[in-house]
Amino acid sequence: MSEYIEHDKNGISAGIVEKKFYTFARDPDLLTLECGSKIGPVTLAYETFGKLAPNKDNVILILHALSGDSHAAGYYHQNDPKPGWWDTMVGPGKGIDTQKYFVICSNILGSCMGSTGPSSINSVTGRSYGLDFPLVTIGDMVVVQKALMDHLGIQKILSVVGGSIGGMQVLEWCARYPESVVSAIPLATTMKHSALAIAFNEVARQAIMADPNWNKGNYYSGNKPDLGLALARMIGHITYLSDESMRLKFGRRLQDRADFSFNFDADFQVESYLRYQGSKFVERFDANSFLYITKAADYFDLEKQHGEGSAVRAFQKMRSAFLVVSFTSDWLYPTYQSKAMVQAIKKSGLDVSFCEIEAQWGHDAFLLPSERLSNLMKGFLERVRVECRK
Amino acid sequence: MSEYIEHDKNGISAGIVEKKFYTFARDPDLLTLECGSKIGPVTLAYETFGKLAPNKDNVILILHALSGDSHAAGYYHQNDPKPGWWDTMVGPGKGIDTQKYFVICSNILGSCMGSTGPSSINSVTGRSYGLDFPLVTIGDMVVVQKALMDHLGIQKILSVVGGSIGGMQVLEWCARYPESVVSAIPLATTMKHSALAIAFNEVARQAIMADPNWNKGNYYSGNKPDLGLALARMIGHITYLSDESMRLKFGRRLQDRADFSFNFDADFQVESYLRYQGSKFVERFDANSFLYITKAADYFDLEKQHGEGSAVRAFQKMRSAFLVVSFTSDWLYPTYQSKAMVQAIKKSGLDVSFCEIEAQWGHDAFLLPSERLSNLMKGFLERVRVECRK
Repeated sequence: MSEYIEHDKNGISAGIVEKKFYTFARDPDLLTLECGSKIGPVTLAYETFGKLAPNKDNVILILHALSGDSHAAGYYHQNDPKPGWWDTMVGPGKGIDTQKYFVICSNILGSCMGSTGPSSINSVTGRSYGLDFPLVTIGDMVVVQKALMDHLGIQKILSVVGGSIGGMQVLEWCARYPESVVSAIPLATTMKHSALAIAFNEVARQAIMADPNWNKGNYYSGNKPDLGLALARMIGHITYLSDESMRLKFGRRLQDRADFSFNFDADFQVESYLRYQGSKFVERFDANSFLYITKAADYFDLEKQHGEGSAVRAFQKMRSAFLVVSFTSDWLYPTYQSKAMVQAIKKSGLDVSFCEIEAQWGHDAFLLPSERLSNLMKGFLERVRVECRK
Repeated sequence: MSEYIEHDKNGISAGIVEKKFYTFARDPDLLTLECGSKIGPVTLAYETFGKLAPNKDNVILILHALSGDSHAAGYYHQNDPKPGWWDTMVGPGKGIDTQKYFVICSNILGSCMGSTGPSSINSVTGRSYGLDFPLVTIGDMVVVQKALMDHLGIQKILSVVGGSIGGMQVLEWCARYPESVVSAIPLATTMKHSALAIAFNEVARQAIMADPNWNKGNYYSGNKPDLGLALARMIGHITYLSDESMRLKFGRRLQDRADFSFNFDADFQVESYLRYQGSKFVERFDANSFLYITKAADYFDLEKQHGEGSAVRAFQKMRSAFLVVSFTSDWLYPTYQSKAMVQAIKKSGLDVSFCEIEAQWGHDAFLLPSERLSNLMKGFLERVRVECRK
């Protein structure tokens, strides 16, 4: 990550940014969700970077993964120790150049990062929703994001960009609002979860729900299910890395000891790393949000929901140009899944570019600094903007 | 599994077998373990199939994986609903032919299947050991198995055979008692756990230890950590399958419903499957044994423990002929790890045959009926027996 730190030192960032909030769907105009339930009011957290062009043709919408937030880049204040989660990609002169584009990063419905989710106060009861929060889908998340775009007066988005669950939102945007999306960049994502991906999510959810502090989702006034959430995060972390990346990063190196402990302490560095990741995560994330967002990802099925079982039919409804990117060592959403997507896009007659990037860091690769990825995105965005202007 | 059921119907099994026990290391002749602790008495459960040849040249020792036991084949009684765990491989005319060979299957130290382990009564306190049970290694397991062989009057073993953690015991046998092992068949195994394998084990252990019923290992007189152990098993099960096998076995099929539940019930078949596997496992396995055996597997490092850091040097101490088998879709112990083993064996000058079997069932493939594997083992065993007689 040294490249990343250098970047910061150079101060080439989107600068000081502010988290903003848009609230809508106030009673009686509640939002009807895919499951049939109604909720409101709905708040969505978002941040913007760069300037909107007078003709509004330079909008890029960034959508984040499971535990992300609206803070894609920049700093909240001068002494903020670290920048947003995609600061290596979003900023002046970077892959998504904030000197050229007006970048919006939107949080998601169901999250705990400023938007309405299970930890939010239910206006009917005056207490946190907990499991009274209805199950939301990737479609519901996108409907809420569309309301935000309408609120901001943006009818056309030059590019919708996102990795992992953010990539599912990208596909959903293209399917639901084809006239609004000029181009799309789904990264390290899939048209639908494999049984393996569902299995990992399910075990992670079971870990949370097995924690007695979870208390059927009602823990906001007491002890939180930290052990369960930490476990869920550890399971997730294994899937974000890869056999190769773990071998390079940890191998069989021991943690602060010359030999085995011969007890159940963390002997190996990889054990300490996972325990650390688990314990850090509980400080910033809500266990119920983890349940809701993973379930939304498992439910996502582009073919079923938009193509009557056919991926080609789903893409035939769309109008965007695509840049699809996968990573060699991503075994959560392996390249063959991106290739299937690319095949379907091609068959639908849409413009598609595809790149499999050689990367050892597994699924997480899309979040790490990559000149290759930055250049790919920069080139693609420039091209679609030119074509858009014709 | 229809092939497997046919087998049973035909009655081609090792017949009625009996679990036996050998107890040694009685006070004051306690067993000193690798960690330095002493324990005793030590009981080892084992079963035998077939007949010992008068010159004792037909002994095959089978060593089992994490949750296995001594019951490799046959039935305990006439109405026993299912045979031993490797009945498709071990029996009259099968890959390991009980009409030719005297087959011994030994349980392991630390297990809960009849041998001394954390759930056993500590003769000093009169209560179950719990975490007072010392951490045992693959080496300790093999030392105890050697004591059993001595007790049975067997000085030379025609072949030591085992998959997964059983394969680690195979390698350890060859390293520790080179003069006793004529040949060895390590299946779907590794010379040392990768960081990925350690990571999965660690998360599974954390799941057990996060269960409040675990109570630092002291649960034998109260509620057991069933939720934690079920989670650990679910995590394990994902690693035993593969992306491909899960896609074929489950895909995105829903469980007993036409559409999503829009709650946290099991929607997908793969979720129900994992929950079922978890709940079944807690009926037959001890959570502390899970902790001890996985830790022993993580500690196992043939190069470090027997070759001063060199796999070649470790094999140079051995005298066995090897048949190494890996499976294409095994991502817990991928083929590249078996290939590294084969390379080291070749360099050491020992006789080695290697086969990577095309199999979609992941790590579990070594347990499933496979004509290919049966024929390979049959041929190898016949060859080494002939060579042994020369």
